[in-house]
Amino acid sequence: MKFGARNQITATVGTVKTGDVMSQIDLQVDHPHGMSSVMTTESLQELGIKPGDKVRVIVKAIHVLVAKE
Amino acid sequence: MKFGARNQITATVGTVKTGDVMSQIDLQVDHPHGMSSVMTTESLQELGIKPGDKVRVIVKAIHVLVAKE
Amino acid sequence: MKFGARNQITATVGTVKTGDVMSQIDLQVDHPHGMSSVMTTESLQELGIKPGDKVRVIVKAIHVLVAKE
Amino acid sequence: MKFGARNQITATVGTVKTGDVMSQIDLQVDHPHGMSSVMTTESLQELGIKPGDKVRVIVKAIHVLVAKE
Amino acid sequence: MKFGARNQITATVGTVKTGDVMSQIDLQVDHPHGMSSVMTTESLQELGIKPGDKVRVIVKAIHVLVAKE
Amino acid sequence: MKFGARNQITATVGTVKTGDVMSQIDLQVDHPHGMSSVMTTESLQELGIKPGDKVRVIVKAIHVLVAKE
Repeated sequence: MKFGARNQITATVGTVKTGDVMSQIDLQVDHPHGMSSVMTTESLQELGIKPGDKVRVIVKAIHVLVAKE
Repeated sequence: MKFGARNQITATVGTVKTGDVMSQIDLQVDHPHGMSSVMTTESLQELGIKPGDKVRVIVKAIHVLVAKE
Repeated sequence: MKFGARNQITATVGTVKTGDVMSQIDLQVDHPHGMSSVMTTESLQELGIKPGDKVRVIVKAIHVLVAKE
Repeated sequence: MKFGARNQITATVGTVKTGDVMSQIDLQVDHPHGMSSVMTTESLQELGIKPGDKVRVIVKAIHVLVAKE
Repeated sequence: MKFGARNQITATVGTVKTGDVMSQIDLQVDHPHGMSSVMTTESLQELGIKPGDKVRVIVKAIHVLVAKE
Repeated sequence: MKFGARNQITATVGTVKTGDVMSQIDLQVDHPHGMSSVMTTESLQELGIKPGDKVRVIVKAIHVLVAKE
């Protein structure tokens, strides 16, 4: 499957923090910085995400903010 | 300066594609995948972004979509 | 592939309007209202989207605004 | 009132799930797929949203991700 | 009409910059900082926005990034 | 530091509402309307945000919805 989004990487799920409505998953990627995603707890459960899972990470370019010193 | 966003990396500006209202910059990061950002052309010009610039890349966790096979 | 997003439907691509940096595609869905998506022209070309294509439409619940009279 | 957003439908509120900071509402629309929205619990309370309410659903086209097999 | 969004102000439309797919409008608000919005050119035309119009400006709290020195 | 975003103001932190995964901060700005931001509770803690703090508020123009009567 191909996505209409400029930013796509694969990652491994790290910690999963399940909240009442929203949940957060930390993602291990190849570079030194980790990443995090927030989704509804329902989506988390439907995806059945657990630590160690391989996932695809997708971010539309419009959501990427750039700052310069 | 610290940001209220989970995803922050440093990157080097690659190609800059300037459009009438929106512009796109490609970003070189440490991992094998490049990234892209879209912003208004006005912001691009105010930042004075050009290829080779070091920039900070910020993405709120809520904008990160996760998919699983 | 399963997505960490509450809103997912299938749609047929209608008109494609290609701009310099951003492009817009109109989507035909089962209900009486059409939908539209905006993405970078580069993503549009990589997906090879053309009128009549079947696509999957994904929207995170956090991006859905609700208004009440 | 008219909105600067390409995607607008009317829906009926289904389940409301109230969390500590964020809340989720499920929306019944005319097509076979339901929709969901996430907002702050404060906004939910100010709108006084409850199951059965008719609401207007608004999504900017830039937030609509398209995927293709 | 009430909106499920924490941030709502009224503003006066300033400059309108119409692009091929996306358009930008500058907004005059009560405080010393102006604001800008980007929408599809189609939405701009459907709203019939022109300088001097009074508009309502809505931003979901999740899209507000906070930074601290 | 300069940001690739059209909307930037300074604000004073008002109430902070800490949730399990997401947190909300109310912001006092110069104009009569307050603002709110939602971020992960982890980001809130890393920023060490507390009432009275001066912060910078950044919103990309693409996230600003305009409505007209």
